[in-house]
Amino acid sequence: MKINGLHQHTIWVDNLHSQQVNTFDQRYLPHQCNIYTIQSSLDAINAISNMVVRGAPLIGVTAAYGMWLAAIEASKHKNFEGHIATAAEQLKASRPTAVNLTWAVDQSLSIINATKGLTEKVDAALALAERLKQDDVETCFQIGTHALPLIEAIHAKNPKKPVNILTHCNAGWLACIDWGTATSPIYQAHDLGIPVHVWVDETRPRNQGANLTAFELGQQGIPHTLIADNTGGHLMQHGMVDMVIVGTDRTTRQGDVANKIGTYLKALAANDNNVPFYVALPSSTIDWKINDGLEEIPIEMRDENEVRFIRGKGSNEVVDVLICPESTTAANYGFDVTPARLVTGLITERGICEASEQGLTSLFPEHA
Amino acid sequence: MKINGLHQHTIWVDNLHSQQVNTFDQRYLPHQCNIYTIQSSLDAINAISNMVVRGAPLIGVTAAYGMWLAAIEASKHKNFEGHIATAAEQLKASRPTAVNLTWAVDQSLSIINATKGLTEKVDAALALAERLKQDDVETCFQIGTHALPLIEAIHAKNPKKPVNILTHCNAGWLACIDWGTATSPIYQAHDLGIPVHVWVDETRPRNQGANLTAFELGQQGIPHTLIADNTGGHLMQHGMVDMVIVGTDRTTRQGDVANKIGTYLKALAANDNNVPFYVALPSSTIDWKINDGLEEIPIEMRDENEVRFIRGKGSNEVVDVLICPESTTAANYGFDVTPARLVTGLITERGICEASEQGLTSLFPEHA
Repeated sequence: MKINGLHQHTIWVDNLHSQQVNTFDQRYLPHQCNIYTIQSSLDAINAISNMVVRGAPLIGVTAAYGMWLAAIEASKHKNFEGHIATAAEQLKASRPTAVNLTWAVDQSLSIINATKGLTEKVDAALALAERLKQDDVETCFQIGTHALPLIEAIHAKNPKKPVNILTHCNAGWLACIDWGTATSPIYQAHDLGIPVHVWVDETRPRNQGANLTAFELGQQGIPHTLIADNTGGHLMQHGMVDMVIVGTDRTTRQGDVANKIGTYLKALAANDNNVPFYVALPSSTIDWKINDGLEEIPIEMRDENEVRFIRGKGSNEVVDVLICPESTTAANYGFDVTPARLVTGLITERGICEASEQGLTSLFPEHA
Repeated sequence: MKINGLHQHTIWVDNLHSQQVNTFDQRYLPHQCNIYTIQSSLDAINAISNMVVRGAPLIGVTAAYGMWLAAIEASKHKNFEGHIATAAEQLKASRPTAVNLTWAVDQSLSIINATKGLTEKVDAALALAERLKQDDVETCFQIGTHALPLIEAIHAKNPKKPVNILTHCNAGWLACIDWGTATSPIYQAHDLGIPVHVWVDETRPRNQGANLTAFELGQQGIPHTLIADNTGGHLMQHGMVDMVIVGTDRTTRQGDVANKIGTYLKALAANDNNVPFYVALPSSTIDWKINDGLEEIPIEMRDENEVRFIRGKGSNEVVDVLICPESTTAANYGFDVTPARLVTGLITERGICEASEQGLTSLFPEHA
C-alpha cells in the first residue's frame, strides 16, 4: 500500500550486502513517519518489544529477519549454535503473547540447524524471512479477494451511495506486510472503483484506529471518518453502517473470536440492527485446540497508564497527557471475546465460512 | 458532596450583598479545581456557553442566578423590561439543547414580571434561583433513596464482596447541585457502609467519566476504576458488573432514553449478560409529548475537534493533543438512544418504574 504516494511494504531489505532491515517506526505514526533501521538481532528484539512494529504477522516476519541477522552474527562467533539459540530465545520472549512470533522463530531455527555451512545457514535464514513475508502478502490478498463479493453485493443493491464499512482497531497493512486483513477487501473494492467509506473506531486505549487505520486509509485515498468507540451503535441504529469487518488475534475451533477490546460491543450492536458482522483472518490465527473462547482464551491485562494517559501531538511535539486525577487507578484489558453466534462469517485465505466448527473444517478439512 | 474534604454545592452565593455567584470551573477538572465567579448576566451566559458549568440541572440553576444578576442590572436602567427580556433571550440561547435552561429562565422571567417594585423583583429572582437549587438537591436525594434497596439487595446476596456498579459519562453531583442522579444511590450506599466499587467509563470524546466522575468519586472516597469505553462488555461477560446505572438527557413517554453516546452499547451488553440496567432521572427530563426515541429525539452533532483532540495534563499544563492525522475528519454524535426494551427500570424522585408508558404514568398519573 502507499505512503506519500509510493507503494511500500512494512518491512524490507534494501540490499543484501547492507545487512540491514528497514521498517516504519509505528510508535510515532501518524504524526511522524520515520524509517527505523534494524542492524542486529538485538535491534530486532527491541523493535518488537518496544512496539516499533506491532501486529502479529509483521511481528513474525520481523523476528524471521532478526534470525537472519543473528545467523550473520553467529557465523562470526566460535559457538554458532549457542549464539543462534540465545538469539531465538530472546526474540521469542520479546512479545510473549504474539503466536506468530514463536512460529516464525522456530521455523527459522530449524532451517538454520538443518542447513550445512555458515554461508548457507545465513542464506537459508534470509530466504525463510523473505518467504514468510511473501506468504503474508498472498494470504492478505486472498482474504480481500474472497470478501470482495460481499462489498460488491451491497453496492449492487444501491449503486448511488458508498458502501459504509465500520472497522475497529488496525487490521490493516501496517499490522501485516501489505493489504491487511480487514482492510484488504476495502482496498480491492476501491481499486475497482466501488465507492467505499470507512467508519474508523479510534480504539481506545491505544488508539490504533485514530493513529494507524486513519493514516493508512488516508494515504490510500479511501474516504473515511474517525469516530469515538461509543458511536457505532448509534450509526447502526440509523442505517449508516452496511457491514462491519474486523480482524482477530485468535479464533477458536467453534468460531469464537478474540479481538481488540470493544469488538464484542460492536458485534452486539450489529446483531441488534441486522448489520452483517465479518471477521477477516489468516488461518494461522485459528487455535484448533480450543473451543470456548470466553472460557479458554486468556485476556492480556496491560499497563493501566495506557488508559490514564493518551499520546497525541501538542503544539510542537508528540506528548503523553494525563486524562484523569493523578490518584485514579485504571484497568486495561487488551482484548475481548465475541461469541460465534454474533459473527456472520469468517473470511480466510481459503474463502468465507460460518463461524462454527463445521464451517471452519469445511475450509480446512485437514483439521476435521 | 466533598471537595478537598469539605462539603460543597456546585453553585452558591457567598452573601447577598456581594452580588456574585460562585461555581467550579469544570473545564479544567480534574487537573485544576478553580472557583469561577459570575458577577453579571453576561458572565452567566459565558459560563454556560463555554461549559464552565455543564449538566442540565446545574445549567438551569446557573441560568436562574443569571436572571437574578440581570434583574439587578435592569433595576439600574430606565428600561427594566427591555433589559431583562434581552438577558433572558441570551441566556436561553447560550446552550440551546438543554431543556432545563429554557424552563428555568422562563420561570424566572414570569416571576420577575409578575412582581411589583424593583427591589422586590430582584429579591423574587434570587428566591427562585435558591428554590430551584434546593429542589434539585431534594430530587437527587430522593432518586438515591429509591434506588438504594437495589444495591442493598445485591449486597445481601453476597455480603463479602463489593457491589460492582458500572456508569457512563457524569451523572454525578457535578452535573447537578449535590448527590447527582446515577451517583446518588452509590453515595448513600457508601454512607451506610455498604462496600461499593464503580467502573467508570472514560466517556469519549469529552471524557466526562475520566475527568469528572473519577474526580468526584475519588474526593468522596468511593473505590472506583477507570476503564476505556470498550471494556464494559468484557467485564459483564465475566460477572464483574452487578448493575449499570446511568443518567439521561431526555426520556420519552414510552421509556426510551437518550443519554451520552455509547450508553446503548452498554445496555446491549447488560441485556446479553443478564446485568440489570437502570436509568436515574429527575422527572423534569421526561418529554411526555414524544414516544419513539429513535425517531423523535434529535441527536446533537458536535464539533469534530472534540474527537480529533483530547485534553489532558502534559508535563506542566493542561493541553489539547491531536490523536489522528491532520487531514482526518471526524463525526461527533453527542448522544444515542437506548430503547425501553433494554432498560430494567427508571429511577425517579417518586420511585422506580418499568420503562414504559404504563410504568411512567403509574408514578406520574397527572400525565396519564
